[in-house]
Amino acid sequence: MAAATSSLSTSPTLSSLALQPATAPSTNTPAISPSSRRPPSHRLSPSRANSGHPGLPMGCAPVGHVLYDEVMRYNPKNPYWFNRDRFVLSAGHGCMLQYALLHLAGYDSVQEEDLKAFRQWGSKTPGHPENFETPGIEVTTGPLGQGIANAVGLALAEKHLAARFNKPDNEIVDHYTYAILGDGCQMEGIANEACSLAGHWGLGKLIAFYDDNHISIDGDTEIAFTESVETRFEGLGWHVIWVKNGNTGYDDIRAAIKEAKAVKDKPTLIKVTTTIGYGSPNKANSYSVHGSALGAKEVDATRKNLGWPYEPFHVPEDVKKHWSRHVPDGAALEAEWNAKFVEYEKKYKDAAVELKSLINGEFAAGWEKALPTYTPDSPADATRNLSQQCLNALAKVIPGLLGGSADLASSNMTILKMFGDFQKDAPEERNVRFGVREHSMGAICNGIALHCPGLIPYCATFFVFTDYMRAAMRLSALCEAGVIYVMTHDSIGLGEDGPTHQPIEHLSSFRAMPNILMLRPADGNETAGAYKVAVLNRKRPSVLALSRQKLPNLPGSSIAGVEKGGYVISDNSVGNKPDVILIATGSELEIAAKAGDELRKDGKTVRVVSLVCWELFDEQSDAYKESVLPAAVSARVSIEAGSTFGWGKIVGSKGKSIGIDRFGASAPAGKIYKEFGITAEAVIEAAKALC
Amino acid sequence: MAAATSSLSTSPTLSSLALQPATAPSTNTPAISPSSRRPPSHRLSPSRANSGHPGLPMGCAPVGHVLYDEVMRYNPKNPYWFNRDRFVLSAGHGCMLQYALLHLAGYDSVQEEDLKAFRQWGSKTPGHPENFETPGIEVTTGPLGQGIANAVGLALAEKHLAARFNKPDNEIVDHYTYAILGDGCQMEGIANEACSLAGHWGLGKLIAFYDDNHISIDGDTEIAFTESVETRFEGLGWHVIWVKNGNTGYDDIRAAIKEAKAVKDKPTLIKVTTTIGYGSPNKANSYSVHGSALGAKEVDATRKNLGWPYEPFHVPEDVKKHWSRHVPDGAALEAEWNAKFVEYEKKYKDAAVELKSLINGEFAAGWEKALPTYTPDSPADATRNLSQQCLNALAKVIPGLLGGSADLASSNMTILKMFGDFQKDAPEERNVRFGVREHSMGAICNGIALHCPGLIPYCATFFVFTDYMRAAMRLSALCEAGVIYVMTHDSIGLGEDGPTHQPIEHLSSFRAMPNILMLRPADGNETAGAYKVAVLNRKRPSVLALSRQKLPNLPGSSIAGVEKGGYVISDNSVGNKPDVILIATGSELEIAAKAGDELRKDGKTVRVVSLVCWELFDEQSDAYKESVLPAAVSARVSIEAGSTFGWGKIVGSKGKSIGIDRFGASAPAGKIYKEFGITAEAVIEAAKALC
Repeated sequence: MAAATSSLSTSPTLSSLALQPATAPSTNTPAISPSSRRPPSHRLSPSRANSGHPGLPMGCAPVGHVLYDEVMRYNPKNPYWFNRDRFVLSAGHGCMLQYALLHLAGYDSVQEEDLKAFRQWGSKTPGHPENFETPGIEVTTGPLGQGIANAVGLALAEKHLAARFNKPDNEIVDHYTYAILGDGCQMEGIANEACSLAGHWGLGKLIAFYDDNHISIDGDTEIAFTESVETRFEGLGWHVIWVKNGNTGYDDIRAAIKEAKAVKDKPTLIKVTTTIGYGSPNKANSYSVHGSALGAKEVDATRKNLGWPYEPFHVPEDVKKHWSRHVPDGAALEAEWNAKFVEYEKKYKDAAVELKSLINGEFAAGWEKALPTYTPDSPADATRNLSQQCLNALAKVIPGLLGGSADLASSNMTILKMFGDFQKDAPEERNVRFGVREHSMGAICNGIALHCPGLIPYCATFFVFTDYMRAAMRLSALCEAGVIYVMTHDSIGLGEDGPTHQPIEHLSSFRAMPNILMLRPADGNETAGAYKVAVLNRKRPSVLALSRQKLPNLPGSSIAGVEKGGYVISDNSVGNKPDVILIATGSELEIAAKAGDELRKDGKTVRVVSLVCWELFDEQSDAYKESVLPAAVSARVSIEAGSTFGWGKIVGSKGKSIGIDRFGASAPAGKIYKEFGITAEAVIEAAKALC
Repeated sequence: MAAATSSLSTSPTLSSLALQPATAPSTNTPAISPSSRRPPSHRLSPSRANSGHPGLPMGCAPVGHVLYDEVMRYNPKNPYWFNRDRFVLSAGHGCMLQYALLHLAGYDSVQEEDLKAFRQWGSKTPGHPENFETPGIEVTTGPLGQGIANAVGLALAEKHLAARFNKPDNEIVDHYTYAILGDGCQMEGIANEACSLAGHWGLGKLIAFYDDNHISIDGDTEIAFTESVETRFEGLGWHVIWVKNGNTGYDDIRAAIKEAKAVKDKPTLIKVTTTIGYGSPNKANSYSVHGSALGAKEVDATRKNLGWPYEPFHVPEDVKKHWSRHVPDGAALEAEWNAKFVEYEKKYKDAAVELKSLINGEFAAGWEKALPTYTPDSPADATRNLSQQCLNALAKVIPGLLGGSADLASSNMTILKMFGDFQKDAPEERNVRFGVREHSMGAICNGIALHCPGLIPYCATFFVFTDYMRAAMRLSALCEAGVIYVMTHDSIGLGEDGPTHQPIEHLSSFRAMPNILMLRPADGNETAGAYKVAVLNRKRPSVLALSRQKLPNLPGSSIAGVEKGGYVISDNSVGNKPDVILIATGSELEIAAKAGDELRKDGKTVRVVSLVCWELFDEQSDAYKESVLPAAVSARVSIEAGSTFGWGKIVGSKGKSIGIDRFGASAPAGKIYKEFGITAEAVIEAAKALC
């Protein structure tokens, strides 16, 4: 597992083996698993997938082989060992390469039958790598460019934790992050953003392989991608190495990695020129091998061409034997590290406690008591400012809280005052300066969150600019990364910057997304509640929509209420039968409360409900939901300074939704609210028409 | 207006004037308009805005001055003159610079009172430049990086039209595209994507100024942006020039533009090092001048420092006189071009007719007859394939149709077979190869659409990857660019690629967005209908969600139905009172139709409704809507292979929505449909429970 260069590994036999994972189970063909652990009757037909992306696995097999067989430090029997090297296949469509390597290396998650069940219902080998399905996969990739940005996040986490915890006599945090990215990743803007940051931060332990095969789905990259990637990366502050013969140049690959490790102040890009589908006599170096199965005939021809006489899915004995050392070696590596940790614990007790909590994701009991609470007498404030109070309170009790803004720290109010800036020469600090790079910011935070359970990354921009980072946010939701998205300037209430900066459809758009919490707190207590929810939800991300403008602290608001997603803040009815229910979120809860007061003066019984997080409310018991929104009460008015889309289900066929179903405008906030009819008067009028 | 270098323009006086637009109306200060055209009582207080971004206008005034006063060819009295040079302020927050320049140059859209109404309700001078509000503004910017990508689109359009229409003796299409971008734009991934394409395409008439002021909102760019922009742009294939003294180096700016024009096969980046807020003695070169008003005291100090003794909003006589030539000069330029066009028309009649239709956006009568129609006997096909038939049919009758895919042409089925690839040396062709660059693809298409009314750009990727380009799509909607988004693989129906590739919440998320049409056709006729709608809607973009899998042509489907957004495809009830209404879109309409057939066999009266475009349906008369979805019928079942979010309003409190409120899975499509319960059986069961 250490970088020993076995003489065997340059022999033609091993070349074939290294290629095997590629040609093999990518579709319907060769074998790599030593033994079947289930009876033959349960075996799936190897031809079952008949789809997939054989090209990259065949071209990148040598890099994959050198990494998993020689370079990387990992323990196959504990894929979550803290100090493992991380590997990210940014070109996620080539996942069969990684599945094959995990299988050869001895991971329990990828058995022979899993390989045979490639891309099938319920398998551990889905069409793109999914960390939540397959232990040994670090992050979820497939959408191009995300993986390299995740890798930057993983490498940032390592650099940060190493700076915080390593001691001169005990480097307890010490691993590399490797990534493979293809031409597609290189074209994506997110990759350039992330790599610019990696260069800026000097992430010396990030080593990325660029699979330069000159082919993308539409054909030769000449048709759309003729830039000099090397020159660009030099501009980004990376060390760049070119391996010209990636198909068989094992020694060149080894030498490049050695050189990369020697450059400690810069990340390294190793451009590896390969032939896509290498080994396939008729389809190599063509786009047809990128995303389609080779077909039985070409598989046979490939096997002949590579001199591979074995049955499908068969791994020859010498190969099994060669790879079998990774199980004991991996166990030894972890044991060695565990012993190191025991020493560390003895000498650096407090640091060890903190590091342990980061590794395990366990917070100190009572951490939530650090959150501030407010009364109606507390001064009115913008929820973005209240958010900053929460972040700074949490920073004292959550050792893994770190994050920052995409160049809007002073608008998003995200600075942790007790810390400095995370920088190349100050990596122990926790204020991350992402620059104007929203998309990579989200994906980097996914990498941080998935590095170890105790790290809680937050990131910030204007709510409208979630549009720039939505692909990364969706992946937070899918890959179960509990990132906290601090999204300020959450409505037309931002005023003069106008419609380009005013979110309208954004609340709806996140409410429709699976496994993400969309929270829109109305005041101090609700902001604290939103943070409590966000911190507790380590496997689903939270989006906090926060106001630019000041809001009063409302009677009846509470942290506990937020935890239920929706709750009553005021009510003068009895028997769960108000004349009308007013429902609002965030900055409009104040308006609903005002309208409620007025309607009560007119003798109505009025309930005012804060629906701060629809997803959490949906999860409550039917009895609780009925106690907040009784089915018998059809007189309902909702008010929210955003699209009414989705509110129909809440207010019902007879109810009325006050919102904004057009783009915003450039003017002072109060003027826009008035012109758009987001007012207490409008609520009162609507309510009166209903009851 | 031509590049004459007036000796006046290097004098201290003109330096001050050039800076004037900047210091001036950015907030609450100096003057630039010669005469008030409204009575004093209507004048707005110059201190009214008290917000804005003075930094860029003050630092970039010299570049703006040289462009608008010396270099650019335009006609202030006809901002839509076809052959004008285009200018894009990618750093849109600096819009006061452009408003001031438009005002000085004599555009009617920006009068003195408009400057005074900066960032106020209903003004022509919103907080960021909006083409739909202010003639003279080409595109809508503010969200960073979009503008430079729009500029690439404008330059592409020019290169394409020049190649198609120019003759050796008559270069009828011949203009430059200029852009100013700041550090923020440079950090955004979209800018790198767009500039990589600009380099690839060799857009020699694109000249971009990089306002290198080393300050962004969070402070010195050293904290997050230390890459070498020059090196990166060299890698991207651009010609790079550095003007070291952008504050006062007028001659250097002129020389750089001259050099840029001489390089015909590459776009040029002119890095102009400036001082943000130049002229402000206490706030220049600090982040505080980026996004906040200077304040009255600092304004006074700045005026003194620049030797500017005039009243707020006052433009001295010599300045007025200097700029006054642009009105007659602009009229002369257009007249000269008109004469050239008369010559062109005489000699190249057919080409002139086609060019005219591109300039005016008028299509040949009966163009829609080119769209294919289908019967239930037509073979089942994927709507992505049917889409290709429509695109190829339209290409014959719509001379401005051009576009392509983000490296998925063979999956999205977007190739126009009668044309080749648009490339550096084949710019007359119409298949655009965007590479894997979704975000810039959208923004480039916005630029193409806004170049002239007859150009209809389309672009394509998998529907799920709209997440990568959502910011550009929102701008299509806001800036009224009728881009056609061809989004295939629109559900779990794509199968094995798994949840990273399967859209769930995307239909809902676009239905919530203002001014965009979300169309999900079910078969051939509906696909043709979707294209008819998309082509006719030149001021709002259309998103077509198309299937990977084959779908039958359904009895009752029609182009006319699609134009109404929702319509009945089958019904065995009388008196507008079916027992149950089944509502579906796209690939699930087949399932609803099947369920309807089964239910009818059981004696039920069943209406099946295709709700192909909710936005269009919403726009129909109440009577029509009642004829499709009668209020009295509460037994409604919807089925769509996506989030049920938003369907509550359609099916009502008593109805049932069948959909997918979780992420997808990697498996063959049929298996996922079955496992997720997106089946006729589920519809039948739900319907039976309701009627």
